[in-house]
Amino acid sequence: MKEIKISIAGASGITGIELIKILDRHKHSKIISALSRTYEGKEISKAFKNILSLKNNKKIYFKSFFSKSDIQDSDLIFLCLPPGKSMEYTKYLMENGYNGKIIDIGSDFRLNNADDYEEWYGEKHILKEMLPKFVYGLPELNKEAIKNADYLANPGCYPTSIILALAPIIDLKSLKFNSITIDSKSGVSGAGRKLKDEYLFLNIADNFFAYSPLKHRHIPEIEQELSKISGSENKISFTPHLLPINRGIFTSIYLNGVNIGEIKELKDKINDSFNNFYRNEAFIKLIDDDIPKISNVSGTNSMHISFLIDCRTSAIKIFSAIDNILKGAAGQAVQNMNLMFGLNETEGLDMQGISN
Amino acid sequence: MKEIKISIAGASGITGIELIKILDRHKHSKIISALSRTYEGKEISKAFKNILSLKNNKKIYFKSFFSKSDIQDSDLIFLCLPPGKSMEYTKYLMENGYNGKIIDIGSDFRLNNADDYEEWYGEKHILKEMLPKFVYGLPELNKEAIKNADYLANPGCYPTSIILALAPIIDLKSLKFNSITIDSKSGVSGAGRKLKDEYLFLNIADNFFAYSPLKHRHIPEIEQELSKISGSENKISFTPHLLPINRGIFTSIYLNGVNIGEIKELKDKINDSFNNFYRNEAFIKLIDDDIPKISNVSGTNSMHISFLIDCRTSAIKIFSAIDNILKGAAGQAVQNMNLMFGLNETEGLDMQGISN
Amino acid sequence: MKEIKISIAGASGITGIELIKILDRHKHSKIISALSRTYEGKEISKAFKNILSLKNNKKIYFKSFFSKSDIQDSDLIFLCLPPGKSMEYTKYLMENGYNGKIIDIGSDFRLNNADDYEEWYGEKHILKEMLPKFVYGLPELNKEAIKNADYLANPGCYPTSIILALAPIIDLKSLKFNSITIDSKSGVSGAGRKLKDEYLFLNIADNFFAYSPLKHRHIPEIEQELSKISGSENKISFTPHLLPINRGIFTSIYLNGVNIGEIKELKDKINDSFNNFYRNEAFIKLIDDDIPKISNVSGTNSMHISFLIDCRTSAIKIFSAIDNILKGAAGQAVQNMNLMFGLNETEGLDMQGISN
Amino acid sequence: MKEIKISIAGASGITGIELIKILDRHKHSKIISALSRTYEGKEISKAFKNILSLKNNKKIYFKSFFSKSDIQDSDLIFLCLPPGKSMEYTKYLMENGYNGKIIDIGSDFRLNNADDYEEWYGEKHILKEMLPKFVYGLPELNKEAIKNADYLANPGCYPTSIILALAPIIDLKSLKFNSITIDSKSGVSGAGRKLKDEYLFLNIADNFFAYSPLKHRHIPEIEQELSKISGSENKISFTPHLLPINRGIFTSIYLNGVNIGEIKELKDKINDSFNNFYRNEAFIKLIDDDIPKISNVSGTNSMHISFLIDCRTSAIKIFSAIDNILKGAAGQAVQNMNLMFGLNETEGLDMQGISN
Repeated sequence: MKEIKISIAGASGITGIELIKILDRHKHSKIISALSRTYEGKEISKAFKNILSLKNNKKIYFKSFFSKSDIQDSDLIFLCLPPGKSMEYTKYLMENGYNGKIIDIGSDFRLNNADDYEEWYGEKHILKEMLPKFVYGLPELNKEAIKNADYLANPGCYPTSIILALAPIIDLKSLKFNSITIDSKSGVSGAGRKLKDEYLFLNIADNFFAYSPLKHRHIPEIEQELSKISGSENKISFTPHLLPINRGIFTSIYLNGVNIGEIKELKDKINDSFNNFYRNEAFIKLIDDDIPKISNVSGTNSMHISFLIDCRTSAIKIFSAIDNILKGAAGQAVQNMNLMFGLNETEGLDMQGISN
Repeated sequence: MKEIKISIAGASGITGIELIKILDRHKHSKIISALSRTYEGKEISKAFKNILSLKNNKKIYFKSFFSKSDIQDSDLIFLCLPPGKSMEYTKYLMENGYNGKIIDIGSDFRLNNADDYEEWYGEKHILKEMLPKFVYGLPELNKEAIKNADYLANPGCYPTSIILALAPIIDLKSLKFNSITIDSKSGVSGAGRKLKDEYLFLNIADNFFAYSPLKHRHIPEIEQELSKISGSENKISFTPHLLPINRGIFTSIYLNGVNIGEIKELKDKINDSFNNFYRNEAFIKLIDDDIPKISNVSGTNSMHISFLIDCRTSAIKIFSAIDNILKGAAGQAVQNMNLMFGLNETEGLDMQGISN
Repeated sequence: MKEIKISIAGASGITGIELIKILDRHKHSKIISALSRTYEGKEISKAFKNILSLKNNKKIYFKSFFSKSDIQDSDLIFLCLPPGKSMEYTKYLMENGYNGKIIDIGSDFRLNNADDYEEWYGEKHILKEMLPKFVYGLPELNKEAIKNADYLANPGCYPTSIILALAPIIDLKSLKFNSITIDSKSGVSGAGRKLKDEYLFLNIADNFFAYSPLKHRHIPEIEQELSKISGSENKISFTPHLLPINRGIFTSIYLNGVNIGEIKELKDKINDSFNNFYRNEAFIKLIDDDIPKISNVSGTNSMHISFLIDCRTSAIKIFSAIDNILKGAAGQAVQNMNLMFGLNETEGLDMQGISN
Repeated sequence: MKEIKISIAGASGITGIELIKILDRHKHSKIISALSRTYEGKEISKAFKNILSLKNNKKIYFKSFFSKSDIQDSDLIFLCLPPGKSMEYTKYLMENGYNGKIIDIGSDFRLNNADDYEEWYGEKHILKEMLPKFVYGLPELNKEAIKNADYLANPGCYPTSIILALAPIIDLKSLKFNSITIDSKSGVSGAGRKLKDEYLFLNIADNFFAYSPLKHRHIPEIEQELSKISGSENKISFTPHLLPINRGIFTSIYLNGVNIGEIKELKDKINDSFNNFYRNEAFIKLIDDDIPKISNVSGTNSMHISFLIDCRTSAIKIFSAIDNILKGAAGQAVQNMNLMFGLNETEGLDMQGISN
């Protein structure tokens, strides 16, 4: 297998750095170019002393722009850019004759409908014609399309934690319910390295609170993908919260007003559905004897899910845990890359958990 | 005003110690006896070096049993005991001629119905005849009864964070909704000083997870009190989670399937109701420009509440934050004591927040 | 006792806010003016929701400048300002006829010698003539001078944790040693609310490191005060470190090359000296059966100290713990205020520890 | 290269589990047996949900004793056992004809002199005759001996953080100094999974303190190895402290009373010495523009070191950071295994840091 030649835009953000860490251990990849305006000219292990500490690694120097040869030689470009910037960059690459693949870890190509983008992100979409070419990259739900994709929209962290947990359940057409309430809790790395008062240690440690309680930008993405699975429109009440930890998302999903019927039967039905969806998936684990914990997935590309049926209140409770930087961003991006290039889906992703 | 002579059973647990800290600053109280089997014979500031550090304070030595004179002289006994032990202790006090007041910070006298106790706590109630004499101690909802109470059941920490936040809303008889979903997050001090693997630093730091997702013992207490306010039966779907911090509870409450109607009108109606309920309450603050944060209440007896109407999903979201050890336990107990003895309700409770 | 009328410059920093919290509970003080450019016009409990949550408190609105009447009416002005700003402000107050007292919680008047200031702070001292009028405010060492002071330089947080721990030992003229090595560890609140990358949660949590290892500005202050006690010049090797917590300083002091002699005798001598120094001090506690812990002092104005004699290496080890914001800043400032105004030294400072 | 067949005693402690995680990614190793009384019969990824989450991994079931074939077939046995247990186990293995290699991650074979063991560990050494056969496993100082070793004593975590940082400096025979003061700070994982009050989240979070300030068991090990390098006896004043984080050791070393001479010259000399010692070492990094941080090494087998010369106080300050579970335990053990079996020293140890 030849090496995949890779360039990265937005390489010094949290996702970009995590991506570089993974690719450093990936057998079939080679980073040829990494962009960062902040660290232009700096060697990566000088700027980020926690990575590439093995002396025999090749050196990467950040630069500000891709050279012509970067664009010509790259088999794959990762975009780790804020809203609005991915489409600008994609436009630029198209105009400069780039003909490799793109994985956008940003949010510009996740919504199929440009109007939704404009409503939720508050700005014009400047590359609507490319939207249909971007495949939504949840490998466990969309594997064949991903294998054939040239352009891939890597899912948001919250949507990953939600859609994969709900898919096997809302796929059950016989299951009826009144509403979906989702309460997610994320570590602060989800906000990247933003230098804002609210992300100071002083304001996060020993603290907890909800944020963006009405209009979080991940909502239309979640509803779009859920509706594809259920075949009808799904509205979700979604509330994110900030945890005083660095990594991890724990999501609690509540299906309310469920026609539970015979509990044993429903339980079997849901278990079967999970089996059908994820039996052969390396990164999804249905926890049947416990509840997922962030510590059990942090540092890995795994997702843990469990569900419970609450007869007393006619509700189903579903819990999921992921590492927001890995399965929720850079890890899933490499998983998608592996599929797009015909590699083993788990290549480079055999990290063990970091907790003790 | 004369001094209230106070004895405490279970004085070395987290709640007991916090109670002692508050009473140390209370103008009209005097601790005459404090029980702790673990620390029997030890002077309190030797056993707990973080308290009573001012040298001019009187010394308290823990003992294992109340003496006859303790029982005879006490105007008030606080019980800070695990489930099943408060009723045993109350029985013992009654049989030994105690005729002062009791505040039970434990859970044995919160449920009006002994059958509920037996169902949720899994053991016989041995003092059913006393249940009607215990007043449920949420001062903001139940002030007159508390003023006249001899026996008081201090509410649980989760129930406090939920009932006070919901009361002004479910009191609106015109408001209809399908279900109530409650997602609470508590600091580890809620579990007391239990020496269990799950409470080791290793297993809590950098971690987050749900627990007791189906049958938490605070559920019947919450439903009982909510139903009294709404006048009809309220079932709640309740899920507690453990935060990697010491103090504080943040609760997210979701009313689903609400007949919202004209949003401005509903908002005014709810605001008015909060005003009616809490206008004169020193410890309740409706936050109208933000969302409550644990850091804004930890170390205080205050509760912060906010609400939002989500038209898109026909939901109302209510957020509350309290310090679980203060407003959720020892602070509220002293607030109740003040009312029961005709004192200023805020006496001893003017602590400022501990965050920076 | 009449009320002390107080104005505060730099009122919205961490020290300023903590000062306001303490004064709110102080029986004989009244804040008449509080300056903050950042929060100009804002009511304090709106800007800082964790304080003054009791509704019956008077309201304070931040302003940008003292009015003429503020300057005329104040009995005491606290300066909570960064290096270089306290002297500017003091100059301004003098020029505008202020004739009350000043407590500078900043660093401009701690060094007796303007040359030292210029060497360590890197700027000219513009008010050298006032230096002799400022009394160094360590109440346990300097009480009589403080009682008579009009101008007071409140000590730095590290110096407080070091000087008080060393004083009774270096006061022993018979004790000889080769060197003093000091390793201090501080919570991040020591850096105030500075918005810098290094104080983001991401960069502090799960982390630890030394900083300013050669030239920390507290060094000359420590050496100046130690030399006054020992009567000869004391040089210290001092290294501060940053802890992933909000509050507290733990200092480890090592006297190397000590002429220990008979260990029992030396131990008694040091114990006696501690007794002589601090027997009647409300805020100093010599821990004889354990080692101080930050959790035992955080939230209080107390300082815990212990010492050990290591015969094997001819060293004495001294450990101290304080709350850097209280005994290390705002608490000590109020302690000094109490002395300067003839009040009980502990007034307003009876806070209990915040740990469980 | 054939597979190394490995058995592990004490496999479910923190070090044992970390070892299993590393070996899972090691190309030339196969775990044939893992002992844990606590988890006997349990499949490892059920007992520790954070590991081996990739479904295609082989399953390991914990057992209580090695079978005959385990002992016969193992090429290498790792001992992750508490003091006193490694020698018992080694004795047992010898008596049962084991003729493979042993790496003891415990402390029983680190001290060359059985008397030292008995003095510092307080019990008889039952296998003195084996002491000379155990090679002390600091690969960067002792590589050739390790390559030829059958029995290896893996260094303690504190000694690793200290000896490697000091070796190039005390090796300079022209350097004179009066004393060595060492102040180490460790994450709580250093204490393993011990269920003790002092390791509860309540007692560690927001806290910091020193422990074992006079007689920590790592002292004789450090002095023994330093003396081998310097060629004369080195006594150290060592004080460990507990950090409120899970992983990492930061050590501050102070050489006091140094004959500094011309600073530039001394600096070059030390730099040269570091170069001579570690030029070709993959895991040691001399940080020349900054100070090491725990976040830069946690999750890796790397050690970061920096040094500073303080002319003002005639001291040299040396700082080091390691991950106590990796370079301080399981990672270094695998590094030693690689050397003992003629493999690439970094095999299985290419983990990237876990911080963001």
